[in-house]
Amino acid sequence: MLSTMMEPALTITSVMNFAKKNYPNQEIISVTADNPLHRYTYKDAFQRVGKLANALVELGAKPGDVIGTMAWNDYRHLELYYGISCSGMVCHTINPRLFDEQIEYIVEHAEDKFLFVDPLFVTKIEALQDKMPNVLGFIVLTSEDNMPETTLRNVHCYETLIADKSDEFVWPELQESAASALCYTSGTTGNPKGVVYSHRSTVLHSYASSMPDAFAFSRNDVVMPIVPMFHVNGWGIVYSAPMAGAKLVMPGPKMADGKVLTTLINQEKITMSAGVPTVWLALLDYLEQSGESIDSLKRVTVGGAACPLPIFKTFYDKYGVEAEHAWGMTEMSPLGTYNKMSSQDRELPEEEFNQKLLRQGRPIYGVDLRIVNENGDELPWDGTSSGAVQVRGAFVTAGYHKQQADFTPGGWFETGDVAFMDEESRMQITDRTKDIIKSGGEWISSIELENLAMSHPAVAEAAVIGVAHEKWTERPLLVVVRKPDSGLTAQDILKFYQGKVATWWIPTEVAFVVELAHTATGKLDKKTIRQWYQDYQWQD
Amino acid sequence: MLSTMMEPALTITSVMNFAKKNYPNQEIISVTADNPLHRYTYKDAFQRVGKLANALVELGAKPGDVIGTMAWNDYRHLELYYGISCSGMVCHTINPRLFDEQIEYIVEHAEDKFLFVDPLFVTKIEALQDKMPNVLGFIVLTSEDNMPETTLRNVHCYETLIADKSDEFVWPELQESAASALCYTSGTTGNPKGVVYSHRSTVLHSYASSMPDAFAFSRNDVVMPIVPMFHVNGWGIVYSAPMAGAKLVMPGPKMADGKVLTTLINQEKITMSAGVPTVWLALLDYLEQSGESIDSLKRVTVGGAACPLPIFKTFYDKYGVEAEHAWGMTEMSPLGTYNKMSSQDRELPEEEFNQKLLRQGRPIYGVDLRIVNENGDELPWDGTSSGAVQVRGAFVTAGYHKQQADFTPGGWFETGDVAFMDEESRMQITDRTKDIIKSGGEWISSIELENLAMSHPAVAEAAVIGVAHEKWTERPLLVVVRKPDSGLTAQDILKFYQGKVATWWIPTEVAFVVELAHTATGKLDKKTIRQWYQDYQWQD
Repeated sequence: MLSTMMEPALTITSVMNFAKKNYPNQEIISVTADNPLHRYTYKDAFQRVGKLANALVELGAKPGDVIGTMAWNDYRHLELYYGISCSGMVCHTINPRLFDEQIEYIVEHAEDKFLFVDPLFVTKIEALQDKMPNVLGFIVLTSEDNMPETTLRNVHCYETLIADKSDEFVWPELQESAASALCYTSGTTGNPKGVVYSHRSTVLHSYASSMPDAFAFSRNDVVMPIVPMFHVNGWGIVYSAPMAGAKLVMPGPKMADGKVLTTLINQEKITMSAGVPTVWLALLDYLEQSGESIDSLKRVTVGGAACPLPIFKTFYDKYGVEAEHAWGMTEMSPLGTYNKMSSQDRELPEEEFNQKLLRQGRPIYGVDLRIVNENGDELPWDGTSSGAVQVRGAFVTAGYHKQQADFTPGGWFETGDVAFMDEESRMQITDRTKDIIKSGGEWISSIELENLAMSHPAVAEAAVIGVAHEKWTERPLLVVVRKPDSGLTAQDILKFYQGKVATWWIPTEVAFVVELAHTATGKLDKKTIRQWYQDYQWQD
Repeated sequence: MLSTMMEPALTITSVMNFAKKNYPNQEIISVTADNPLHRYTYKDAFQRVGKLANALVELGAKPGDVIGTMAWNDYRHLELYYGISCSGMVCHTINPRLFDEQIEYIVEHAEDKFLFVDPLFVTKIEALQDKMPNVLGFIVLTSEDNMPETTLRNVHCYETLIADKSDEFVWPELQESAASALCYTSGTTGNPKGVVYSHRSTVLHSYASSMPDAFAFSRNDVVMPIVPMFHVNGWGIVYSAPMAGAKLVMPGPKMADGKVLTTLINQEKITMSAGVPTVWLALLDYLEQSGESIDSLKRVTVGGAACPLPIFKTFYDKYGVEAEHAWGMTEMSPLGTYNKMSSQDRELPEEEFNQKLLRQGRPIYGVDLRIVNENGDELPWDGTSSGAVQVRGAFVTAGYHKQQADFTPGGWFETGDVAFMDEESRMQITDRTKDIIKSGGEWISSIELENLAMSHPAVAEAAVIGVAHEKWTERPLLVVVRKPDSGLTAQDILKFYQGKVATWWIPTEVAFVVELAHTATGKLDKKTIRQWYQDYQWQD
């Protein structure tokens, strides 16, 4: 039987048209390299998006072409998001923090036709441009006055390029499954892998992530995404905030500057923000030092890495801000789970509350999540059974750009995380699949052992890796960077574990090092650390 | 370029599976004819939905078949919603308040194969069953103990039917555009017209209507839909509440019983409810008389008809409840606009605030709305330009079941409402297209004139219709039912309009009647009233 319902395509164009029509006067505030406080409205923004679309056509870009961006969170980057995707092209956001070889690789692999570059990255791209033969031209995201001297070939100034274009553009009728954006993961193994989002997945992710138990965006929110727009579409906020009619504040290159963030919060009356734990540390440090307050801020989302308890506590106890854990990844658009605490939760004994607070949260509708054991059998959500986390859904990738998909039967994506689900459907990540230590047929969480070591006052940083062991298959080796002048011994730290974990979890031995290895994005590079110890001989 | 994203079908089955997996212990509370307080969980519900699906197969129902329901808001009706739609059949909810001939017509037109009937409607259906030759059997929604004596042919008892069935069912992989449900509009002209919802439109409407600026459903909500599930899927709450993991309370046949509603609110800690103004009058009257309170209730949605100011005020001032206006219709799944007031709004001067409070609100994302003049030209959103309201979107119908679509170019659905949009994108309905009075090339709102007349203390009810006029094309005729023993004259009431509307809006003449005509759902039947005066001769 046929439904009588209309079936308009779910497109980013419809988000743009909706925001333009319903919220024309809502503001977008940006910090850029050339302007410490740029202010305009959705109406202004989408008029300029029309100009940009005309400019892209004039440059020779065609539907289906991939257009690269290397830029901070600001209004011009927002214009690129919409101008490129709504023209039927693919917006490829490039992470400037990647290693040079990775950047060269992905620009070539993605076949970027043009590259839009923040003035702050011009020098970087000048050095790399010869390794990017497929790029036809570069556009610097600035005005004529601020245009830097540059050796970039076929270079344009953004403002000059769009200045004389019409703001009218006949947006193409796109298929909802058409590619809209491309983002490469910065994995520690092999080359970066590209995830190609569709218009449909982007709209559905915007709906799902805006729900009251997730970002909860409303017209009355003033939202500052501190997560870079070169990370998974800035968690999709550049789409979901306009969909809700929220005011947007974008801190440009000042994302780790506690003072700028505080000024923006107070001046623009920011109600909600989102970022990684490092950003919140910078903000809280600044507030502590300056004695300033952040009264308008009601909630922040913390993702990208597990957030330490003191950040949650300081936000809530000192500033009345609800810090909310979220979990996701590039392959998931990114949001998978979100941890909203209820007023009933707040009545729990503190330790129990803290445990729940630190969890990664509940799956949002649109994400089907399960945990499985080594045989692929689904495990119960009982608060103890830990297994590999798999997901599927309308904003989860089925594979990588130009690669064969390598997923399990049933179309589940292997997240690489190990977790248990508690009886309230809150996920607690316990490790990464590749970092778990398999000892005597059981799993030991390297992360839990690392966190415990790091809570010792004499430890600056710690890693725990599994090293081959004749009897137990693997045993944990604790690798420690001591704090300066600390006399910490192996015995001290091993004793510190007693009573905190099962005896058989306690690392077998300790190695002291001056420094640990890190990835381009600052995470522990366990792969390299494992290589250091691949021939390690246990003492016993 | 190809996206790499998964494209699972958006289906009601996925809502069911999500709620079952993530919120198994969330409760569903019902009042039924046979149980004043039935209580179970989502897990229980969806296990019984599995049993029902097996029972449907055993009855001989096949994918694509239309299965009718005539029932109140309770857990068995919820089971039918999911069991029928997730089996690939079409759930046809029938409004028991329609005239008998309309019920016969729609059961035949929809080709219902089976009819599930609340015990309270058995007598009604017994009288009609001979006019429903295509219905193969009837199932009474009750247990064996409460099964009434009945002359219904091929009759089953619901509980007996599903009792011995397995709760395991292999749900079919449905196309998202497949028909899921069918609801007939109870228009005043011609036969009822059927709107066939799809799985896709239902999921998208659930997302859109759950957003923070609309129903704002969260896991912590306890939601009581008082809007009947035979009206546009109970405003979709039977889908959107489980999607959010909210607790559901369903008042069964007690929807106009202020005492039962109050008890449910206080006992189940209801936070949100939705219904038509009449329901709220019943609730507020009861509270006034009993002196009881409703402390857990935070917000109510008012739709289906324009809600008078005192309801909003009493809710907020006396009970701290935000009453929120919404607008939609069967053809829109139903939600089109929603009126959320902000804390800034509450700081406005009272008259200005009240004006905004009474508006129907802003379009939700997924609804593209415009107002047009008689030539079809789009009108500005300036707070004064009034025109016909047209909509389109992913949960708007493109036509009616078994009828040729008759929509305007561009695929816009004519809502039949006349409205202006204010500068904050809030819609104010001023009339129905067919009730507007065209005088001297200008439009006069019959509704505004009616509301003014009704605010006169001596008026019991009033209608204003356009009557043909040689010079002005049409002029307004005011038709009044006086309050008993009132000596109200035509001059009195016409004078009452002075200074309240433009002089040329004031009705030309007044007719006094003992009673006005009403539709089956209690609205003014303007079509009939216009027929009374089709040959009316103006005095002048």
